[in-house]
Amino acid sequence: MNSPRESYVHGRSDREAERLNYQASKLVELLHHDTRYPPGSRVLEAACGVGAQTTILAKNSPGAEFVSIDISQESLARAKLRVSCEGITNVTFRKADVYNLPFRPETFDHIFVCFLLEHLPDPLLSLKKLKETLRPGGTITVIEGDHGSALFFPDSTDAHRVIDCLIQLQREMGGNALIGRELWHLMSDAGFTDIAVSPRQVYADRSHPESVEGVKNIFVAMVEGVKEGAITRGLLDNETWESGIRDLYRTTEHDGTFCYTFFKATGNKEI
Amino acid sequence: MNSPRESYVHGRSDREAERLNYQASKLVELLHHDTRYPPGSRVLEAACGVGAQTTILAKNSPGAEFVSIDISQESLARAKLRVSCEGITNVTFRKADVYNLPFRPETFDHIFVCFLLEHLPDPLLSLKKLKETLRPGGTITVIEGDHGSALFFPDSTDAHRVIDCLIQLQREMGGNALIGRELWHLMSDAGFTDIAVSPRQVYADRSHPESVEGVKNIFVAMVEGVKEGAITRGLLDNETWESGIRDLYRTTEHDGTFCYTFFKATGNKEI
Repeated sequence: MNSPRESYVHGRSDREAERLNYQASKLVELLHHDTRYPPGSRVLEAACGVGAQTTILAKNSPGAEFVSIDISQESLARAKLRVSCEGITNVTFRKADVYNLPFRPETFDHIFVCFLLEHLPDPLLSLKKLKETLRPGGTITVIEGDHGSALFFPDSTDAHRVIDCLIQLQREMGGNALIGRELWHLMSDAGFTDIAVSPRQVYADRSHPESVEGVKNIFVAMVEGVKEGAITRGLLDNETWESGIRDLYRTTEHDGTFCYTFFKATGNKEI
Repeated sequence: MNSPRESYVHGRSDREAERLNYQASKLVELLHHDTRYPPGSRVLEAACGVGAQTTILAKNSPGAEFVSIDISQESLARAKLRVSCEGITNVTFRKADVYNLPFRPETFDHIFVCFLLEHLPDPLLSLKKLKETLRPGGTITVIEGDHGSALFFPDSTDAHRVIDCLIQLQREMGGNALIGRELWHLMSDAGFTDIAVSPRQVYADRSHPESVEGVKNIFVAMVEGVKEGAITRGLLDNETWESGIRDLYRTTEHDGTFCYTFFKATGNKEI
């Protein structure tokens, strides 16, 4: 089996890193406000990427000790730098694969997973492997998006087509861009108990200029990021692609609206 | 122009009335918790249908005086009976068309509209007509669904096809089942100020048995209601229809999930 993050659908360019950081800061309140870990608890963050979520996690729970892993040495280096620049000292980084975790069973009190499962060929296996490292009574928190939730005005067939390209390319890489709706059964199938899934919806119209900027800089930028792959693979011709992207930007104009739903799931490991 | 509710896509059978009542009671908290009118204020409810929202409105604002209108005498009779059975005394009913309102300008302090615009050939005109009856400084509240927001697991092409039948039939009757995402521009174009749109998402999985029942009794029942029209018009063959409905029910089983988004908009009439 390939290492999950080796075939990552999103780029690792500076623009991409900036996009991920921006995304994290915009969504902090929506996604993180109810995640706090008690002092002294040991928390595994898998996988941390460039550290966008890491800084938030570590600041929100300054007394907890985080171990943040990623498969990419380059991402880890960026994450380390970021955490260090922000003066955060309660995070240890380690290169590791979520399918082959270098930790003894029941090492952690809590596990945090954000925007990871969508890239994995076998998200259920990864949850089971993560569960082994969790102590009985410990918790897991999983946050994922679902591109099928994108809803906008003016509606546009071409806009849906370009989004479908991203979904298709992610699928070809073994991932699943529609995984948010699946968190309930994935957590159940992995054997977690007391599972609670809560959708978190972002909505943008002209009365929320910050959210409108978020749609452009996060969602549309993400879709634009797969243009080359989509055109090269013949998923779409250039004209339709440009039309779809134009229509996505159109939803951020004066009368446009845009909705997207993230899913946050929590569960426990039985005592 | 046809009277808007004469060509109503949903039925008016007892089952339909029960469905609408059930729908209202389930969604009360989600949709109504932030709608309260001060004692002495005059509120127009357009259009009240069988009174599902009327009882909630009137109970939540017992000091306000409601005038609830509908185009259908039969619906008004049901609404009157319901309100009277519940001992509610602050509602007056009147048969009226939203395009030809029998009220002097600036009669009302507030206007409430729920699940109406989706059925109208010209929702913008109706908002403008309603606005005329509103006093300067008065508010309008509009609640509508958006069938394009239906998101579920397991996903199913046939399930989307049967939903598309409902959308198509509603469109042929001059309505728009995807109107939720348009509230922002409709309210803006009608000239309201201080517009705020907030999406209200319902989510169902096995940990919320009541919500799962809601998906069956409200959403799937509504889709099933247009079967005859869909088959007769040749929008879908019987086999695909049955498969799509089966797949919708499948989303309410043990590992299934279902999401739907309503949109609530408020605005003011400039002083």
